[in-house]
Amino acid sequence: MKRIDQKRIDETLALIKSSEKEGAGNERIKTIVNRLLEDLFNAMADLDITSEEMWKACDWLTQTGKNNEYGLVFAGLGIEKFMDVQMDWEDEQAGIENKTPRTIEGPLYVAGSPESTSYATLETEPEPNGERLFMSGVVRDEKGNPIPNAKVEIWHCNLKGLYSHFDSSQPEFNLRRAINVVEDGKYEFKSFVPVGYACPPNGSTDTLMQLLGRHGARPAHIHFFVTAPGYRKLTTQINIEGDPLTFDDFAFATRPELVPHIERISAEDAAKYGKDEAFAKINFDFNMVHEIANAAPGENHRSHATA
Amino acid sequence: MKRIDQKRIDETLALIKSSEKEGAGNERIKTIVNRLLEDLFNAMADLDITSEEMWKACDWLTQTGKNNEYGLVFAGLGIEKFMDVQMDWEDEQAGIENKTPRTIEGPLYVAGSPESTSYATLETEPEPNGERLFMSGVVRDEKGNPIPNAKVEIWHCNLKGLYSHFDSSQPEFNLRRAINVVEDGKYEFKSFVPVGYACPPNGSTDTLMQLLGRHGARPAHIHFFVTAPGYRKLTTQINIEGDPLTFDDFAFATRPELVPHIERISAEDAAKYGKDEAFAKINFDFNMVHEIANAAPGENHRSHATA
Repeated sequence: MKRIDQKRIDETLALIKSSEKEGAGNERIKTIVNRLLEDLFNAMADLDITSEEMWKACDWLTQTGKNNEYGLVFAGLGIEKFMDVQMDWEDEQAGIENKTPRTIEGPLYVAGSPESTSYATLETEPEPNGERLFMSGVVRDEKGNPIPNAKVEIWHCNLKGLYSHFDSSQPEFNLRRAINVVEDGKYEFKSFVPVGYACPPNGSTDTLMQLLGRHGARPAHIHFFVTAPGYRKLTTQINIEGDPLTFDDFAFATRPELVPHIERISAEDAAKYGKDEAFAKINFDFNMVHEIANAAPGENHRSHATA
Repeated sequence: MKRIDQKRIDETLALIKSSEKEGAGNERIKTIVNRLLEDLFNAMADLDITSEEMWKACDWLTQTGKNNEYGLVFAGLGIEKFMDVQMDWEDEQAGIENKTPRTIEGPLYVAGSPESTSYATLETEPEPNGERLFMSGVVRDEKGNPIPNAKVEIWHCNLKGLYSHFDSSQPEFNLRRAINVVEDGKYEFKSFVPVGYACPPNGSTDTLMQLLGRHGARPAHIHFFVTAPGYRKLTTQINIEGDPLTFDDFAFATRPELVPHIERISAEDAAKYGKDEAFAKINFDFNMVHEIANAAPGENHRSHATA
């Protein structure tokens, strides 16, 4: 099948563009939409995409909205990763070094977690089968000095791979906390080692992943927002060392600097650390950079769930 | 702001592609998705699309699904029009002449309309303020001969611009009928002259149209599917001559061959036509083509509502 001639594509694009009133609407949106439409028509022509395929796509787009899975799709197609790649590049151009690299937020943050000072227990509801985890570290500035008034927001999934709020069987804010650090910049939290999880089975994202010959699973990880006045918000995650999917994350979020060593402390040795049971121990500092005008933003301007 | 270098784009695309297992999934979907992703990343780079803009797009994509407006968006962005342009071009390549041209189906067809022979009244519920319309014609083959066993499905909106089924205030199948023709190929229906209408105010499509400096309105029109065994299904519309938006349709569906003359017959002259009131009269023949292997399909493989 020969490709439709370029003249027809250009005529159709011109017809569409002719409907846009000059001076009305938003020039930026016009530029972006017209570019994406031109790309789409050329792809339809190059690949001879049929109307049947287009209507299947239309149904998938609809269902993905109804399932509220666009956040997952942005993660799974690497679009969210590419946004990080772009911001990393911007930082490089501006000479900004991110000792703790950013990585994707993912779609499962909920605003308004319970706050405490220096220390938090993440379990609202104790997880009887979890491996006890204590994670701690210091929030530091570019020179390595503690940032005294930083806030560390933490969220992770339970042993079923589910997040509170989105999983209504968990208490509100289970495994979601915000720790305000003091002069020493130190944070510590008690929880359990989370597990990896996969996209909702046979949902829009999972279906797409299967069609792409991919899996829709993430290695075990913990999410963080770190904020402090005058500093750029840091959105990042750490991975649980040893997870077989560590470098095979369907969301492409893993970065080598974000896989800290996990140490196992026996029940016998626990007392040396002031703990009363065997536990896994992760030490991880968050290195922040000051806000810099015209650099990549810290804030992810996306819709967040609120409880 | 300088464009991110191509190497980063290509590396990210390669990373994503490396997650696809060879031999698994659907090669066609892989080809299409990877192409669209490459186009998207390049557009993000060329236009310096920010993460803030991407998250706004993510919200819009979600809301459009929840509003069930992707069909309208495909129409409003000219994507459905371009599918027609592609199929017209395919027909040209195959030497197929469409004396009655195709035009877009739109998202408002409902399967299962009441059927009758040769004649139908479209109003389940009489429209007291409508201008009476009688539309008639013949379903013909390539040589102009009547096709004796064709079916003409008809749907149009009421005077509020709303379609039954999608507007629950109307009786089921109001202004939706299917006429089976006999040996003479003739169909006739009684209804009223429909009006133009616009996208749901402040919905996803309307919002996008406003941002593009466009309106989201359609001129008055009537939809048709014409089918007959051995013939390619014809999806088309006619416009109501004189509507100021006739050639300013937000869905780009108008074609000069699909704007038949509308004649006004006075109450005095009505009896000559066997009618008992003043009416508007449209005569329009549907010219079908035989099914041809490897030509553009007649069936629109999209999801249809059923009552």
